[in-house]
Amino acid sequence: MRILGIDPGTGILGFGVIDIDAKGKAQLVDAGVIRTPVKEDDAIRLHTIYDELTDIITQTKPQEMAVEKLFFAQNVTTAMTVAQARGVVLLCGMQNSLKIGEYTPLQIKQALTGYGRAEKKQIQEMVRVILGLKEIPKPDDAADALAAAICHSMTVR
Amino acid sequence: MRILGIDPGTGILGFGVIDIDAKGKAQLVDAGVIRTPVKEDDAIRLHTIYDELTDIITQTKPQEMAVEKLFFAQNVTTAMTVAQARGVVLLCGMQNSLKIGEYTPLQIKQALTGYGRAEKKQIQEMVRVILGLKEIPKPDDAADALAAAICHSMTVR
Repeated sequence: MRILGIDPGTGILGFGVIDIDAKGKAQLVDAGVIRTPVKEDDAIRLHTIYDELTDIITQTKPQEMAVEKLFFAQNVTTAMTVAQARGVVLLCGMQNSLKIGEYTPLQIKQALTGYGRAEKKQIQEMVRVILGLKEIPKPDDAADALAAAICHSMTVR
Repeated sequence: MRILGIDPGTGILGFGVIDIDAKGKAQLVDAGVIRTPVKEDDAIRLHTIYDELTDIITQTKPQEMAVEKLFFAQNVTTAMTVAQARGVVLLCGMQNSLKIGEYTPLQIKQALTGYGRAEKKQIQEMVRVILGLKEIPKPDDAADALAAAICHSMTVR
C-alpha cells in the first residue's frame, strides 16, 4: 500500500509518500514541500498547490492519503489560510480516488510514540527510525507529512 | 461584464450571477445554492462543491468573481470548514481565469447601503431594488452572494 501524507499549509505544504509492505514495514518513496510566495494572492497560491499536488499524485500514484487535521487557537487569519489550502488538498485526494484519513496532531503523536505529549523532535526521530533513514527528512514540514502517513498506516492496518 | 458572487459555506454555498451594462446597471442572470449533506466527509462535500461550481461557471460564463471574506470569532471548527470550501471556490475561479475580488461583510454592506452597520434584511432589500426584482432572492445565501457580486461591480467600475 502506498500512502501520501500531507502537512497542510500555504507558505509551505509538506508531503511525504511511503510504501507499506505486507509485514507492515514502511519505506520512504518521496518527501518534500510545495512552497508558494507569501505576497501572492490566496487564489494564485491555491492554484499552485492544486497543480503541484496533482503532479505529485500522478507521479507517485498513492492509493491512500493522510491529512493532518488543523488545530488552532492562536491566529485565526493564519488558520483560515491554512484551511483553504487544506480544502484544496482534500479535493485533490477525492479527484484522484484516494482513500482519505484525517488525523489530529495528538493522534499522530500517539501513533508514533505512544505518547500524546511527545515533542516535535521526538516525532521526527521516530519518522527517521521507522523509515530506516540516516537523517531526519528536511524540512520539518516534510517530516511532519511522513509522520501523518505513518500514523495512517498504523491506523488502517 | 458578468460577475459571479459567492457566499462561501459547506452546508449551503450561495451563488449569484449578474450582468453589468455599460451604464453600470445590474441585471440578474442566475442565483441559487449548492447544498452538501452535513453527515458526509469534508472531502466528499468539497468535491461536490468543486464539480457544481465548475458547472455553474461553465454554463453562465462569468468574467469576474466576487467572494465574501470570512470573518469569524465564534466557532473555529465551523470557520475551518467554511475556509476549506472557500479554498475550493478560489481554485475554481483561478482555473476558469476569472478575475477575483474578495470583500469583507463590512465592505459589502457599505457598497450596497453606504452604511457599515446595515442589517442583513436591508442588504437583501437593496439587492432586490438594484436588480429590479419583485421579491428578494431566496434563500438568504443566494441573496448574500448577489450582494457580493453587486459590491464587486461598484468597486471595479
